[in-house]
Amino acid sequence: MSLYDFSAPRLFLDAPLGANVDVTPDRDQSNYLLNVLRLADGADILAFNGVDGEWRMRLKALSRKAVVLQSIEQTRAQTPQGDVHYLFAPLKHARLDYMVQKAVEMGASALRPVMTRRTQATRVNLERMRANAIEATEQCGILTLPSIEDTIRLERLLTGWPAERRLIFCDEDAPVADPIATLRALPRGPLAIIIGPEGGFDPQEREMLLRVPQVTRISLGPRILRGDTAGVAALALVQAVLGDWAPAV
Amino acid sequence: MSLYDFSAPRLFLDAPLGANVDVTPDRDQSNYLLNVLRLADGADILAFNGVDGEWRMRLKALSRKAVVLQSIEQTRAQTPQGDVHYLFAPLKHARLDYMVQKAVEMGASALRPVMTRRTQATRVNLERMRANAIEATEQCGILTLPSIEDTIRLERLLTGWPAERRLIFCDEDAPVADPIATLRALPRGPLAIIIGPEGGFDPQEREMLLRVPQVTRISLGPRILRGDTAGVAALALVQAVLGDWAPAV
Repeated sequence: MSLYDFSAPRLFLDAPLGANVDVTPDRDQSNYLLNVLRLADGADILAFNGVDGEWRMRLKALSRKAVVLQSIEQTRAQTPQGDVHYLFAPLKHARLDYMVQKAVEMGASALRPVMTRRTQATRVNLERMRANAIEATEQCGILTLPSIEDTIRLERLLTGWPAERRLIFCDEDAPVADPIATLRALPRGPLAIIIGPEGGFDPQEREMLLRVPQVTRISLGPRILRGDTAGVAALALVQAVLGDWAPAV
Repeated sequence: MSLYDFSAPRLFLDAPLGANVDVTPDRDQSNYLLNVLRLADGADILAFNGVDGEWRMRLKALSRKAVVLQSIEQTRAQTPQGDVHYLFAPLKHARLDYMVQKAVEMGASALRPVMTRRTQATRVNLERMRANAIEATEQCGILTLPSIEDTIRLERLLTGWPAERRLIFCDEDAPVADPIATLRALPRGPLAIIIGPEGGFDPQEREMLLRVPQVTRISLGPRILRGDTAGVAALALVQAVLGDWAPAV
């Protein structure tokens, strides 16, 4: 991983970016630039929108509240987004925020909360998830924006599971075997990882999961892992064997 | 990983455990049992000490403050401890607590804070680290106790690095190659993983690391990872290729 340019703050902008394409940020973002980041007239930011790569842009203050961002130059070309969906029984509050940030750092392309019988959190704040995901992309030099999908019940998720997507089930009851060998045996293609609630899926849910034809079980070792630990560990193995930590085939 | 018995609280006891070996907890632990866990006379706990396996013990209240724990039966035999040292530039407060817990969940056998030029934390509370490590072992069904080593400066750590221990350096500047292939090429044996500060090691420190004969560099993918993410990811790869997530050789 090359050294990134940290000389200017990175900012996600939901607007087209390109040569000579200036952007007028909305009121919230103008406020963020001027009053939170405290950028002065002439200061630079590194903007990205998930499709056009990363662009150095220069802030021009039009008034005390209004700014325009002037396109200076492209700093990085758009990188392709991997296709690894991260499905997880949501935790609460700070632990959920953490889980979202970590999944984004680890290259998840979509995040989806899944309600299970043992799930502790009753509602998931998708807007908060989205904000945490964006912040993680800004802080970690990421050029693609993961999508945040609506909360779904496990049963509904598994019914009609798309045939082309492999579902990696981190199963606490799997014998400790060789997760890397298991993953190596899979062809490259769209993937999903599912992380269950604290205490694991209940027996009926496990049966449901094991009946999905596209499911592959892996063990994550002999110790109990918290959900947020398991998520990062599973993503590390998947990315290193099948994803963008591994050589392209 | 088999399903653990969660019917009783797990507790680390710094005392010998065995058949008919009763334990009189100290005042702090008696208070914890009676007033925090609120265990009544006759309640069971699952005790471990890092060497004698796990034992079901029954609380017998001698008075309102004093208890004795009576040995009932061994529930699990002692598991061997792996030999993976986790060396890390400390973070602050909650993030340090988190890092310690995760490293223990992931099977680190020793944890050692390493001071580098870009380290943010100035002092590390080793007692707090120890308490977090013990709590993680209790909550995650772990039978071995990781050791908490004194904070050390990077230069001192690397001078006289033990020849038999391989040092895995997660290097943000390594080309994105194939971390699993790199790890697979190593023989089994004592290991250490070193995780640098936010922003990475400075150039002189990197040079120092790369001069250690036992160093192996791996890349952790194309994205920037926070220190606590990198730690879990690196441990996942190391355990899955060389440690106790992989088949024994």
